Amino acid sequence: MSHQTFTEFVDLVSPPNKESAVAAQALQDRLTKPHGSLGFLETLGVQLAAIAGTCPPPVPEPVTVAVFAGDHGVVDAGVTPWPKEVTAQMVANFCGGGAAINVLSRHTGARVVVIDVGIATPVPGDAVGLIRRNVAKGTANLFVEPAMTEAQAREALNVGADIAREAVATGARLLVTGDMGIGNTTPSAALIARFTHTSAREVTGRGTGIDDDMLAVKIRVIETALARLSPDASPLSILAEVGGLEIAALAGFIVAGAALRRPIIIDGVIAVAAAVVADAFSPHVRGYLIAGHRSSEPAASAGLAHLGLRPVLDLGLRLGEGSGAALAIPLVQAAANILREMATFDSAGVSERDE
Amino acid sequence: MSHQTFTEFVDLVSPPNKESAVAAQALQDRLTKPHGSLGFLETLGVQLAAIAGTCPPPVPEPVTVAVFAGDHGVVDAGVTPWPKEVTAQMVANFCGGGAAINVLSRHTGARVVVIDVGIATPVPGDAVGLIRRNVAKGTANLFVEPAMTEAQAREALNVGADIAREAVATGARLLVTGDMGIGNTTPSAALIARFTHTSAREVTGRGTGIDDDMLAVKIRVIETALARLSPDASPLSILAEVGGLEIAALAGFIVAGAALRRPIIIDGVIAVAAAVVADAFSPHVRGYLIAGHRSSEPAASAGLAHLGLRPVLDLGLRLGEGSGAALAIPLVQAAANILREMATFDSAGVSERDE
Repeated sequence: MSHQTFTEFVDLVSPPNKESAVAAQALQDRLTKPHGSLGFLETLGVQLAAIAGTCPPPVPEPVTVAVFAGDHGVVDAGVTPWPKEVTAQMVANFCGGGAAINVLSRHTGARVVVIDVGIATPVPGDAVGLIRRNVAKGTANLFVEPAMTEAQAREALNVGADIAREAVATGARLLVTGDMGIGNTTPSAALIARFTHTSAREVTGRGTGIDDDMLAVKIRVIETALARLSPDASPLSILAEVGGLEIAALAGFIVAGAALRRPIIIDGVIAVAAAVVADAFSPHVRGYLIAGHRSSEPAASAGLAHLGLRPVLDLGLRLGEGSGAALAIPLVQAAANILREMATFDSAGVSERDE
Repeated sequence: MSHQTFTEFVDLVSPPNKESAVAAQALQDRLTKPHGSLGFLETLGVQLAAIAGTCPPPVPEPVTVAVFAGDHGVVDAGVTPWPKEVTAQMVANFCGGGAAINVLSRHTGARVVVIDVGIATPVPGDAVGLIRRNVAKGTANLFVEPAMTEAQAREALNVGADIAREAVATGARLLVTGDMGIGNTTPSAALIARFTHTSAREVTGRGTGIDDDMLAVKIRVIETALARLSPDASPLSILAEVGGLEIAALAGFIVAGAALRRPIIIDGVIAVAAAVVADAFSPHVRGYLIAGHRSSEPAASAGLAHLGLRPVLDLGLRLGEGSGAALAIPLVQAAANILREMATFDSAGVSERDE
């Protein structure tokens, strides 16, 4: 293909525009409300202006929610009570419109695209609209060997970058990350532990519901995998050793989205892991990220702190699919609408406070 | 008028339907997601089913945002840096569509109605659509005398009940509270302190921005006013002594909304004060309430804890107008959409977890 590769997008990421941020902050202070009274919504509005390079920022729509699906060999190590086939079954559900991410996206007018980047088992039914970019039928078991070759990881990064490029080319002004992959909280915790210099024990959580014994297994699996990495391992080699195909694709999606100057709402721990990887390739990426929600997985909090991101929502979500990011879409759009449509003290003839 | 009065609505409030709540919880557990993985959104969905008395619940739309405006004599005691005229000026801004509550409501499809229940100064301009139900030109200064007579408080309660009744009669399935009144965090803190048995010092905050000296004045004003109340004062007499006209109207709006079995999203500290008052009249009211956000005013947290409410959002908002409640509208609607539209494990052919 003649399209830009992941590596080319890495070089294209530049910081959001400071002048537009300053202009947006000045505008916030002229709108008919006490200074700072819209709290984090004002911060988001300023960020959107900086990303767009204009004040007020455009309303961030249309929206593309990209759900990347992949399987994980580490499921064989006993880190989840869910059968591996559920990845393919849920992808069929996404294509049929019946999953949470479909319902939540539909009511915000967002388009959902579903990408097979590494599903291990056949997707049942018609799977209408599924984008087939399968790099491998799942990763290898990271408990005993590298999850991917570096060539596979690079290919998955390129798939994600392609999807972001296509979304932007067809008009998307806001990108949202989604994911599906039974077992994927294990590689996510491993990546976050490594990139944030945190112990496996601190970042490992219960995923979508595991007991104490399984949690102990999960921690040992992550510790074992991380122990194989040398201290000076490159981001690509870390991603290949302990990551996942859909996580790599998400990292590519994030980097390309940032290079194309689009705000990107990231979902829970899987997306946070991908964002931490993306950040390791290009530190300017973080200026384009909005954390949709605070996942109940401990690794998510460690990753968000590492990236300096404050989540929009904190609803105790632990579903994945992009659900927490999709729920944040109307709030992010509201932040832009405030800057675009509110009256100023002057225009509305409202007195300012006594100073 | 032959319409039901506030007192009649108080007698009509009955608890939300338990059978529908049980049915909604059972449905949540059949949908294609791990049990409980949508966190607080699942709780909201169950509450909506209980309120509607049917499962799945109807989507809570159309939405009416009722913004009640009133002035406060206590402004003369020096509790705010904003001039009193700003109440009327902001009401003109609401009628012109340029305030935050207009912008946020517009993009969720909610209708905004603005009610003058106690504005002290003339509303500038045309004030198109303003509902003129002025009970008095502001309250008296509660630092030195009762804010209202009991007759005034009762009249304001009836205004609020009327507005809820009219909103429901014209189709509203979701009610949202808004408020405007320079100085109104002072009576709100006083009401919450009294009804939650908390000290003035603990509940008094900086409103839309005051310094240490003004904060000390505010605390002394609240302590002085509360000291006039006997231990066995009735809810109506407490409301009259230390409340406000728009707060009374909000309490009436909440009670009538609950009697008419509609979910009610309440905004920040002003609405929380009104909800605490409404709860004192009828404890069944709280089952109909959804806290849109956690206001940064300390009294709001005390009031929410008293009512057993968990806020949907926590964005550091301190604007009022209904802004935090309006931002929660899409999330509340999403909670219903999940129950109405998601596939079940059976219907989607998705395997459940190994137990």
